Amino acid sequence: MTENHLVVMAGGVGSRFWPMSTPARPKQFLDIMGVGRTMLQLTVDRFRGVIRPENVWVVTGAQFAELVREQLPEVPADHVVLEPCGRGTAPCICYVSWRIKTENPRANVVVSPADHDIKDLEEFRRIVGEALSFSAETDSIVTLGIKPSRPATGYGYIRADLSFSALRHKGIFRVDAFKEKPDLATAGTYIRQKNYYWNSGIFVWNVSTIVNAFRVYARDISEKFEALQHVYGTPSEQEAIDAMFPTCESISVDYAIMEKAEEVFVCPADFGWSDLGTWGSLYDQLPHDEYGNAIVGNGVRAVETHRCIIHSATEKKIVVQGLEDCIVVENDGNILICRLSEEQRIKSFM
Amino acid sequence: MTENHLVVMAGGVGSRFWPMSTPARPKQFLDIMGVGRTMLQLTVDRFRGVIRPENVWVVTGAQFAELVREQLPEVPADHVVLEPCGRGTAPCICYVSWRIKTENPRANVVVSPADHDIKDLEEFRRIVGEALSFSAETDSIVTLGIKPSRPATGYGYIRADLSFSALRHKGIFRVDAFKEKPDLATAGTYIRQKNYYWNSGIFVWNVSTIVNAFRVYARDISEKFEALQHVYGTPSEQEAIDAMFPTCESISVDYAIMEKAEEVFVCPADFGWSDLGTWGSLYDQLPHDEYGNAIVGNGVRAVETHRCIIHSATEKKIVVQGLEDCIVVENDGNILICRLSEEQRIKSFM
Repeated sequence: MTENHLVVMAGGVGSRFWPMSTPARPKQFLDIMGVGRTMLQLTVDRFRGVIRPENVWVVTGAQFAELVREQLPEVPADHVVLEPCGRGTAPCICYVSWRIKTENPRANVVVSPADHDIKDLEEFRRIVGEALSFSAETDSIVTLGIKPSRPATGYGYIRADLSFSALRHKGIFRVDAFKEKPDLATAGTYIRQKNYYWNSGIFVWNVSTIVNAFRVYARDISEKFEALQHVYGTPSEQEAIDAMFPTCESISVDYAIMEKAEEVFVCPADFGWSDLGTWGSLYDQLPHDEYGNAIVGNGVRAVETHRCIIHSATEKKIVVQGLEDCIVVENDGNILICRLSEEQRIKSFM
Repeated sequence: MTENHLVVMAGGVGSRFWPMSTPARPKQFLDIMGVGRTMLQLTVDRFRGVIRPENVWVVTGAQFAELVREQLPEVPADHVVLEPCGRGTAPCICYVSWRIKTENPRANVVVSPADHDIKDLEEFRRIVGEALSFSAETDSIVTLGIKPSRPATGYGYIRADLSFSALRHKGIFRVDAFKEKPDLATAGTYIRQKNYYWNSGIFVWNVSTIVNAFRVYARDISEKFEALQHVYGTPSEQEAIDAMFPTCESISVDYAIMEKAEEVFVCPADFGWSDLGTWGSLYDQLPHDEYGNAIVGNGVRAVETHRCIIHSATEKKIVVQGLEDCIVVENDGNILICRLSEEQRIKSFM
């Protein structure tokens, strides 16, 4: 029987969010929106009613196993799949796909990063349901493409062939091309053409479809995981993976599969999406006070301060006076104060 | 025999230095200069060679007794004199003077606040020695007057009669008048006249002189402490003081005694003095990097930052980018970020 599964990729290190995000607790394990749930929890919450908790899988770094089990007690412990090191999304997806296939060869799968913000959950569930129903009926790879609201230069784009919509799925189109992050002028031409979408990194496919796609388009990676077929779900799995995984090429699923595969479709979506990749994107998604400040933390007081994001994970007192267009973050006594315009350089300040 | 004693007044709450200074540990108990010694310790250190540790007295709030004993183990435990509440410097000085007089009726005393910075210790000791020698020979009240380096509006001024210097003490002059904190124009006229000095709040006198001055100029306060003569140094002292002290008028020794007394002298001094009353004065006294930043704390990194004071009591990482003319302070996770120009408003932000 075809059942829907969710794979949450939660292996990121979140270094652009220091000091909120730390190597010991990256952003997906934090309540960065100040709503009482971590990004990882919000990601799983979002699929409630679409995918049963026992069909949720989380792929993360071995050092985060305990955090995942604490934050997602409803997810089966053996569905927390551990990478011994980061190798990009292609080996990550190939590994978890083999694990799912071993348990359920006909599983229908959504793959989602753990660090997105989505505002319209009803529309999100509708779109995911549509994509799952399409992938259950076909051998297609489906990506969710976000209708762009501005000429963003921080996202990859997907060009759709709007003349070719799927049979019985009028809202799903064949992908013409994947485009890397453009410059501003190019982004402007994209959004004027109406058939370009932001690449959300959310994928939908049948487990046999993606395993076959790895066989065809990423032979090296595929063979490594296929060779371990006999260990998946056994006590020797982790040891075998720990030995083999570091030998995989480090590559994203976009490069390894999406850009090469034939039957790739995009499901255009408009549900208030942000990848929360930087303080600026978090600033945009948070509610603002009348002075344009986005404040998370109960102890924060802002005086004569405008268009700042002020973020504290604790109840500590933070008084900010006279700042404009700045990031102010406190976590465990470590502090970052930085112009919002310079957020791309935060890693280099460390 | 006349012996020299030191009284350190260490009862302040330091609210203008939040969050470095807290009600539980005001600035005098902190290493605010980042030199490995607290302001209180630096104050006592400064008198080394002039006053023996067993002749040091500290007056402070009852809640700080333990801090004083920890930080000044060389001071006799019964020389830590505890006020049950703050009543200004007049009751404070009257109380400790009676305590000293009980132990040594001929004691020669320097009274010093616990939160001053003094750069030239050799000159400081020379001046203090001169003033002590003068007060030992006479029944005079002596104040140290600081040669002003700028028309400061944050200090009171002392006008000296330079035509009248003391016999055998050519560097000590009669005080003509005490002036309250002036406006900028008035301060300008003061410093052009060459006989105005900043009121340092450091006093020198014989214990019998000051006790008599209280009898004459602050009769109410004097009577309250004189009535307790029989308890000083006994086990019932603290209880009696705790009951009586709150009934004292809250008043400074400047108002209660100095401005009224006849025989008041000033000893002009030039030893690099600052009262460290605000972040701005601390900024001025700390060493500056090539961008004009004054940084205390081993974990601080400043990028494209100019003329800021950045202060951390801990080893926490603090990254500051793109700030100018600001105060950035971290203590125990609490943070203040504020324009230096607005430092007088810090209390109101709390």
